[in-house]
Amino acid sequence: MTTEGDTPRRRGRRSGGEDTRSALIEAAREVFAEQGYQGATVRSIASRAGVDAAMVNHWFGGKQALFAAVIELPVNPDDVGSWLATSDPSELARRLVRMFVTLWDNHEGRFAMLVLSVATQEVAAKMIGEFFRNLIFTRIKTLARQDEPELRAALCGTQMVGLGMMRYVLKLEPIASAGVESLVSMIAPTLQRYLTADL
Amino acid sequence: MTTEGDTPRRRGRRSGGEDTRSALIEAAREVFAEQGYQGATVRSIASRAGVDAAMVNHWFGGKQALFAAVIELPVNPDDVGSWLATSDPSELARRLVRMFVTLWDNHEGRFAMLVLSVATQEVAAKMIGEFFRNLIFTRIKTLARQDEPELRAALCGTQMVGLGMMRYVLKLEPIASAGVESLVSMIAPTLQRYLTADL
Repeated sequence: MTTEGDTPRRRGRRSGGEDTRSALIEAAREVFAEQGYQGATVRSIASRAGVDAAMVNHWFGGKQALFAAVIELPVNPDDVGSWLATSDPSELARRLVRMFVTLWDNHEGRFAMLVLSVATQEVAAKMIGEFFRNLIFTRIKTLARQDEPELRAALCGTQMVGLGMMRYVLKLEPIASAGVESLVSMIAPTLQRYLTADL
Repeated sequence: MTTEGDTPRRRGRRSGGEDTRSALIEAAREVFAEQGYQGATVRSIASRAGVDAAMVNHWFGGKQALFAAVIELPVNPDDVGSWLATSDPSELARRLVRMFVTLWDNHEGRFAMLVLSVATQEVAAKMIGEFFRNLIFTRIKTLARQDEPELRAALCGTQMVGLGMMRYVLKLEPIASAGVESLVSMIAPTLQRYLTADL
């Protein structure tokens, strides 16, 4: 396996690396849809795109980041872990809300697009659910109370998804145009309770 | 205006009242889409269906219930008010969660259908948002603290919509198969805080 192993199989010639990247995204979209997030392997995606598996790491850094590119997630998944790195639950709760709102505010329409995928394709809902559980929930879990971490993480998920629905899809006031720090101060205590309280 | 004023305009003959009802739902779907929830009048919907406006009250009881029929809401909007009738905020919070989960649990797939409408049509998002604000939020508002009632109601909305997304659309465990009373005890305190706490 070498990083020069780019052997295009698809019609038309490639003018450069950007074509490899596009071919990988296109292939990944198909393979994820067929096999789900867990089932799809880097090797099978690269093979579908007609390129060497090393290209996935070269262009994306791994399966998680490739999936993020497929759903046009406005953030590199690797950054999420470092942003959330704190052992103080109340600080973690504030960071979760601040990160969520800042990211999606900066990429208007993307959240609604994601909801559309989830609503139109059962397989997308399952995949995107799995992806966010892996991405965010496992990070929350390491900081949440040790009893029922899955449940605590999922409860945080309900509040954040609902905030996104209200702000970016339903666009209901006064949530739609509330300031970021105002949302942080109103909603972070909910997440903190889900992370630390007796349930 | 009389309840006998049913003068069908559409092609084909009507075999009975059910046809009037169907014609009204079809006409309402068009008029709501064109003019939004607030803009659409009972008179314009009846006129589009080629029936007397009194038929709307006869078959549905009013515009709100007609809209509920259009989006196949699994509940008569008039019932919601009586179910939520309590002046105790913590009891109200519990009833909100219990009603929400029980209703949608009993009509599997409807919540996802609603999300699909909202995600695919900007106008549907606006309309459904307006409708739920009128239906639920105004009832919450009369019981919430008197400062910032709109905001408190909308915050409750974020938590409930997110619970619905997680349970019925993303179907993520352990929320997807949690028991109703278990969800009530975990999530009602969030609503109670939104209804009564300093924000």
